[in-house]
Amino acid sequence: MTQYRAPLRDMRFVFDEVLDAYATLQSLPSQREFGNDLGGAILEEAAKLAENVLAPLNGPGDKQGCHYDPETKSVKAPDGFRQAYKQFAEGGWTALACTPEFGGQGLPSVLNMMVEEMVCSANLSLGMYPGLTHGAINALTAHGARELQERYLPKLISGEWTGTMCLTEPQCGTDLSLIRTRAVPQADGSYAITGTKIWITGGEHDLVDNILHLVLAKLPDAPDSVKGISLFLVPKFLEDGSRNPAFCGGLEHKMGIKGSATCVMNFEGAQGWLIGEANKGLKCMFTMMNSARLMVGMQGLGIAESAYQVSLGFAKERLQSRSLSGPKAADKPADPIIVHPDVRRNLLRQKVMIEGCRALAYFTGLHEDVAHDHEDAAVREQADDLVQLLTPVVKAFLTDEGFNCANAGLQVLGGSGYTEDWGIEQLVRDARITLIYEGTNGIQALDLVGRKLGLGGGRAVRNYFALVEGWLKGNADSEHALALGNALKQLQQATLWVASEGMKDPEQAGAAATPYLRLFALTSLAWMWARMAAVAKAKLAEGSTETLFYGAKLKSAGFFMARILTETDSLLAEVKAGKATLMVFSEEEFAA
Amino acid sequence: MTQYRAPLRDMRFVFDEVLDAYATLQSLPSQREFGNDLGGAILEEAAKLAENVLAPLNGPGDKQGCHYDPETKSVKAPDGFRQAYKQFAEGGWTALACTPEFGGQGLPSVLNMMVEEMVCSANLSLGMYPGLTHGAINALTAHGARELQERYLPKLISGEWTGTMCLTEPQCGTDLSLIRTRAVPQADGSYAITGTKIWITGGEHDLVDNILHLVLAKLPDAPDSVKGISLFLVPKFLEDGSRNPAFCGGLEHKMGIKGSATCVMNFEGAQGWLIGEANKGLKCMFTMMNSARLMVGMQGLGIAESAYQVSLGFAKERLQSRSLSGPKAADKPADPIIVHPDVRRNLLRQKVMIEGCRALAYFTGLHEDVAHDHEDAAVREQADDLVQLLTPVVKAFLTDEGFNCANAGLQVLGGSGYTEDWGIEQLVRDARITLIYEGTNGIQALDLVGRKLGLGGGRAVRNYFALVEGWLKGNADSEHALALGNALKQLQQATLWVASEGMKDPEQAGAAATPYLRLFALTSLAWMWARMAAVAKAKLAEGSTETLFYGAKLKSAGFFMARILTETDSLLAEVKAGKATLMVFSEEEFAA
Repeated sequence: MTQYRAPLRDMRFVFDEVLDAYATLQSLPSQREFGNDLGGAILEEAAKLAENVLAPLNGPGDKQGCHYDPETKSVKAPDGFRQAYKQFAEGGWTALACTPEFGGQGLPSVLNMMVEEMVCSANLSLGMYPGLTHGAINALTAHGARELQERYLPKLISGEWTGTMCLTEPQCGTDLSLIRTRAVPQADGSYAITGTKIWITGGEHDLVDNILHLVLAKLPDAPDSVKGISLFLVPKFLEDGSRNPAFCGGLEHKMGIKGSATCVMNFEGAQGWLIGEANKGLKCMFTMMNSARLMVGMQGLGIAESAYQVSLGFAKERLQSRSLSGPKAADKPADPIIVHPDVRRNLLRQKVMIEGCRALAYFTGLHEDVAHDHEDAAVREQADDLVQLLTPVVKAFLTDEGFNCANAGLQVLGGSGYTEDWGIEQLVRDARITLIYEGTNGIQALDLVGRKLGLGGGRAVRNYFALVEGWLKGNADSEHALALGNALKQLQQATLWVASEGMKDPEQAGAAATPYLRLFALTSLAWMWARMAAVAKAKLAEGSTETLFYGAKLKSAGFFMARILTETDSLLAEVKAGKATLMVFSEEEFAA
Repeated sequence: MTQYRAPLRDMRFVFDEVLDAYATLQSLPSQREFGNDLGGAILEEAAKLAENVLAPLNGPGDKQGCHYDPETKSVKAPDGFRQAYKQFAEGGWTALACTPEFGGQGLPSVLNMMVEEMVCSANLSLGMYPGLTHGAINALTAHGARELQERYLPKLISGEWTGTMCLTEPQCGTDLSLIRTRAVPQADGSYAITGTKIWITGGEHDLVDNILHLVLAKLPDAPDSVKGISLFLVPKFLEDGSRNPAFCGGLEHKMGIKGSATCVMNFEGAQGWLIGEANKGLKCMFTMMNSARLMVGMQGLGIAESAYQVSLGFAKERLQSRSLSGPKAADKPADPIIVHPDVRRNLLRQKVMIEGCRALAYFTGLHEDVAHDHEDAAVREQADDLVQLLTPVVKAFLTDEGFNCANAGLQVLGGSGYTEDWGIEQLVRDARITLIYEGTNGIQALDLVGRKLGLGGGRAVRNYFALVEGWLKGNADSEHALALGNALKQLQQATLWVASEGMKDPEQAGAAATPYLRLFALTSLAWMWARMAAVAKAKLAEGSTETLFYGAKLKSAGFFMARILTETDSLLAEVKAGKATLMVFSEEEFAA
């Protein structure tokens, strides 16, 4: 079976050559010193960790899974996870993009995303323990009282402790107004938290000695809506070492990510502290959630990359049938299956989706850094708009395609792929959750049409289109200008349709949401591919010796435009099909 | 969790009202007596068996799996499978469409397909044991020597024994020329079979007392190609009760269908008998394979139906958020999620795909009966053309969509769907193999463009298009005539492109194959939906009281045309994209 190798060359191509990210980052006060040497060295170290420490535990972790002991209410992660996590934390990877004020390294967010991609390629289940911690760090950094920050941030950032996000309850998933967990104020300023949370990633495990739960709950007098939700910090162990009654009641048995402990958590009057203002928990939650959504997008990308590597390795080795244009490996009993057009189609769909998605994700991540740190408020706002606009696109499209790529990869392996021997069926099972958690992909689409298109009265989307148009003007000689321009026009038509029809009737926007998001994503990828092709062409014109690498980029761009971007016609038609096709059905007619 | 209920009303609608199948069948000498009463009664009995006996064992069978004992080389199927299979066989279900000459009931093949759909909805793993037997029966009936037929057919048909198809070897999947298993002629006219076969469904199990293996092997002097393959019958136990050395060497550990024993089979000089002519095994194999391919299509359809039922049940019960057009269940804390447009989209994609696929499958199955039994050779030939043409379409499209529907269903359930509690993640895992076995869906697409389009010099496809055009002429008032006519035109353009370009260069056909098959399938479904809508409209015009049922059909047809058929534009564009986009890549560039 193919061993995962981090695609460092391609990561650097996007980061350095296409996005010119070092220049952008060096314009930020916090990143003046961040250059090619440092960035490159960090990525190489992360690659080693992912390849040598995390990846070898992925298959065994899936087979062994997590185990719950009802006596002690404790959870044991798969063998090796504790040691690997320790290595991860001690290597400074949990602290990478965190604030130096509390022991972080203050490196760019986008670099953290790139590391996350490799971690998720290697071992999604293991990567989720520190991944969720990151959300808790963000919320605490942005909204926590100074005292709470000082007490908890250093140990979260160092990775000595991990964090969770406790949102979901049995009756309450997408609709957080239904939360029943209660927080009762105590005399000492803390709160007693009581309620049951489900699907809590890393709610209990043996990787670290303490776990900090970030819990959504309602105060006794809270309004009966999402405006009545508050966020609390609830440690497993209190400062005096006593056990807080926040217990794991059991594990979910899941299709995949079996090495990740998905817990039922029972809060039995556990002591907690308010984060941010009372009844403003939703805002704090979105601080966790937005960065978590980008990270879930990276999970999709990471899995896709792994699947591609496995299926490409198989396609080069597996001998079956002769090429339709005559034998290619005449000395062997048959040709490697990579000679067959339909196998190539499966491989190339993965390849161009992965590389296009990588560019879009890093592009978004880079703007996250600009949005946080740029000196000019107008630049920050524009970057923040862009991140907000693209976050649901990155989350939904990269996970949709992560799953599609894993399946395309499995298909290349045929029956071998369906067995547990090659690890690719695990990638399919692991990838499947990424379309669901941190807001299902349907919810991402609603976020895009319902909230993000209206951002600043349409400012965010107008600015984004202006960026693409600006690029087209500056690159009129691009051989992909026509295809990109057409896709952009279709996206603009769809946007106009959604904006005008959705204004009159929000169900119109809801009915268009999913195909609209995909149209948005494909157009964005077309832009990324046009840009990548332009850079590759320029490099070749400059006489670069990397003719294989840049030549492949040009061909991949051609494949994307000819065989993927064609989908936009259908998507625009579906957007315009309108809500009637869906809403005309009575509930009974669904079962008729 | 929703219990499976066989969709008898819809099955009858397609069979009786849309296809007028009883009239067609009664025109065949063998089916003069087969009428509505008998057909309806059989379907109702099959439904009871599927719902009450097979379905309850599906989840437990997945969890328990099959177990191999290396000491005895025996395999234990999950608890209850043996008893359920016994009930299945004793109920006459294995004998349904088999020849009365050897104890079969001689009922139509299409009826057997309908039963198969229900069996696969209920329990794919269990259904595979008799399913594979059916292939063995077909091969033996068509090609076996009289003596072999008399010796083995009665017990296969009664279900007392089961059969297997032993094709694949470690080095040999799609490319059967690579077979290494050897057959050495013995003095008594039998053959000694030696070799290893893998992925043998039901190769060893405890459901019955004897298993008959149909094994592809090569004679000592056989040509070194697919023209050197012969088919042999190798029983587990010989007539004198002695054990034939055909042993199970172990089980595959698979993503799904865990209740189905997927065996490594070691033939160690096992005694076998030739079926059909020496070196003509491929032809015999295709007799098994073609009907097996249609049955795999039914597996996809069956799983899709189950997934739809589970997700529809969930969507009606799960309360989450309010409708965008105002509360629909004001007395409850939130509305059932079926009110949300994007949830409806997920449900309706399943619904219209399932019903369209059902119509296409039964249409194909009905022609299988005509092809076998019609008195007029010209009618037989036309029907056989149609079955051959549509077999790869039914296999690939129904399994693609079976998997898509299972995933759409899982998505409706969100996080719940990812847990093992609701059974839908099992449907996704079980469905995944159907895109692979009996020829991957890529191979089906190659079969369609490479063999079936050329059938009778293009006669098969011309006749099929003429059928659709004939329907359009006779139904000019259909509100879907325009959409169907457009799709047909696109399919005809694509066919012309594939035929002319593929003639010059077979890689052009290979590069177009997968999108071409999908375009073919969607156009065929559009025809089915136009027909179903026409029948529903007529029934309503006649004053039928089933307004809910027929009304839903009209709306579903509208959904299909507006939101699914739009994909044809993109598919035609991809067909015409040509091979260069794929073949231009060097092997190294895939990894660049």
